[in-house]
Amino acid sequence: MVPTVEWKDGAVRLLDQSRLPSQVDFVECRDSRAVAQSIRDLKVRGAPAIGVTAAMGVALGAQTLNVDDYQAFVKQVEEICDHLASSRPTAVNLFWAIARMKERLASLKGKTIAEIKHDLIRESQAILDEDIALCKAMGRHGATVIQSGQTILTHCNAGALATAGYGTALGVIRAAWEQGKQIRVIADETRPVLQGARLTVWELMQDKIPVTLITDNMAGSLMRQGKIQVCVVGADRIAANGDVANKIGTYSVAVLARAHGIPFYVAAPYSTIDLATKTGAEIPIEERNPLEVTCIHGSHPIAPTGVAVYNPAFDVTPADLITGIITERGIFKPGQLAGAFGPQRSANKSGIVS
Amino acid sequence: MVPTVEWKDGAVRLLDQSRLPSQVDFVECRDSRAVAQSIRDLKVRGAPAIGVTAAMGVALGAQTLNVDDYQAFVKQVEEICDHLASSRPTAVNLFWAIARMKERLASLKGKTIAEIKHDLIRESQAILDEDIALCKAMGRHGATVIQSGQTILTHCNAGALATAGYGTALGVIRAAWEQGKQIRVIADETRPVLQGARLTVWELMQDKIPVTLITDNMAGSLMRQGKIQVCVVGADRIAANGDVANKIGTYSVAVLARAHGIPFYVAAPYSTIDLATKTGAEIPIEERNPLEVTCIHGSHPIAPTGVAVYNPAFDVTPADLITGIITERGIFKPGQLAGAFGPQRSANKSGIVS
Repeated sequence: MVPTVEWKDGAVRLLDQSRLPSQVDFVECRDSRAVAQSIRDLKVRGAPAIGVTAAMGVALGAQTLNVDDYQAFVKQVEEICDHLASSRPTAVNLFWAIARMKERLASLKGKTIAEIKHDLIRESQAILDEDIALCKAMGRHGATVIQSGQTILTHCNAGALATAGYGTALGVIRAAWEQGKQIRVIADETRPVLQGARLTVWELMQDKIPVTLITDNMAGSLMRQGKIQVCVVGADRIAANGDVANKIGTYSVAVLARAHGIPFYVAAPYSTIDLATKTGAEIPIEERNPLEVTCIHGSHPIAPTGVAVYNPAFDVTPADLITGIITERGIFKPGQLAGAFGPQRSANKSGIVS
Repeated sequence: MVPTVEWKDGAVRLLDQSRLPSQVDFVECRDSRAVAQSIRDLKVRGAPAIGVTAAMGVALGAQTLNVDDYQAFVKQVEEICDHLASSRPTAVNLFWAIARMKERLASLKGKTIAEIKHDLIRESQAILDEDIALCKAMGRHGATVIQSGQTILTHCNAGALATAGYGTALGVIRAAWEQGKQIRVIADETRPVLQGARLTVWELMQDKIPVTLITDNMAGSLMRQGKIQVCVVGADRIAANGDVANKIGTYSVAVLARAHGIPFYVAAPYSTIDLATKTGAEIPIEERNPLEVTCIHGSHPIAPTGVAVYNPAFDVTPADLITGIITERGIFKPGQLAGAFGPQRSANKSGIVS
């Protein structure tokens, strides 16, 4: 699998996901503003991948600073952090990763600026490495809910491309497949940005996992026909009460799953769980450019000029529609999250229970 | 409003809906095979419009026949009918209109071929005129379920473009608007063929009825936020028990509406009610070309080459999810249809109760 994001030759190198699957191009970001713009433009997307990229953006920004004084350096890194934090509002991993980089920076007081710069790169790399480990742990836990012979519906792309590698929801599917389970995947195309059609299908085809593409509005009919046995999706932010913000359309899938008695799972690492947000009602929902809806690939219009459009990028699925949240520590009921991931339990920063 | 279909200068002239809204082009069909191909290619679509077009296709085909013998003439018209009937499987109006043209033909025995040809044109024109009258009657009845201040969700295009004029679901919305009710419409874009984005939005903007375009997967979230008060859709076939086949995605809208306590109405004329089909399970569901899903406008790929695709054009909404079926005779509970439109009640062919 092509890496989603990596530190390479003093730059942050991103797979340009806005051009997949027709073109496999890379973006080389040489300063933190380019990283922020790439996040804003969806060249990199998916909550965990955004977090890793933002951390690397902080490290990259730090390298470009030309100051010797620690306080001045910290102030400028904080400006870089603020700018990166303004790139997208919903995925909490962005803020989590930036906060972790700031904590690391604070812990490095007393070292030389050169040492600090070096350590910030190492920290961002540690976040990347940890992200892959978290996904594999989620995969191990999550695979237990998938039986051989089942067909799994997924929405958007919560795959290797949405993370540093392996994926959250697709990590669960990958793990089940690697265990030899005979499974099939139904991928919602996920309008308007078509992450399902462009990214999920591409990833699964590369791994030779059987996948069938549908438009978002077909899921209900397939459920009624008994063609879907389980739903697994990712998350952009999970509130303390277990409400989940994820790609627009996730809520509809959850309502449909409930109406058909189909289990509905969310796969997400601890960095997506935001205990400071009490319920889903508090999660800011990004509204994006209407052109995403009215033009395909930004250039092929499908609706009359001047039409009014509503384009929220995310919706909130209430905890009571969620069968379980698959984390690196195991599968939890939504209501158990605050207890499991509360302050006293999160001392182990990696989140992986040994 | 531009006419969807008309008899003009000895040809059947169709507004080419596959090119809307970017181009307003017309197709002139000079034989019945061109009419059948236009139906197949979705140049004309919408159950009532397909019925009217097929009737005109029968009349047109009859004009091109060069026989003097009545039996030979009937045989060749029947071949034309069979070919037109093979164009699409789900919308029952197609078969209804062809059957009506055949009945008319049978009733003309004894007249000259020239007279019969003339009368077949008149019958197809009568079907067209009646279709508009049916829509206006549906509009009058249906407008009673829409209150000023409400926002109505509709799916696909059940508008003037889906009929000979005025529309079924959009006829209801139009009638409410013409009565001065302050309403707003949310239009599902309706993947894969985007009838909502391309046609419904275009129609409503022409009439200056406020409309907002959404992707299909946003409807649930809007319902949860209280932004939709009523759903009105069309139908391609209604079974005797009140099950409704309509554009793919209709079923999901109905499930979501039920989950949010929102009334869900279907608007359709008597020609869409198929009492010979007992339940929705018996309705054949057309599966169309995967390219509709993987390419926008048939030429802009959005998914990897070779991906498996499921592309049913319709789904079935069970009667128990339907609040009411708006017909030209009034609004019925799905279970009341067979009684109201049964053999003894349908002597009045126009379907309009005086």
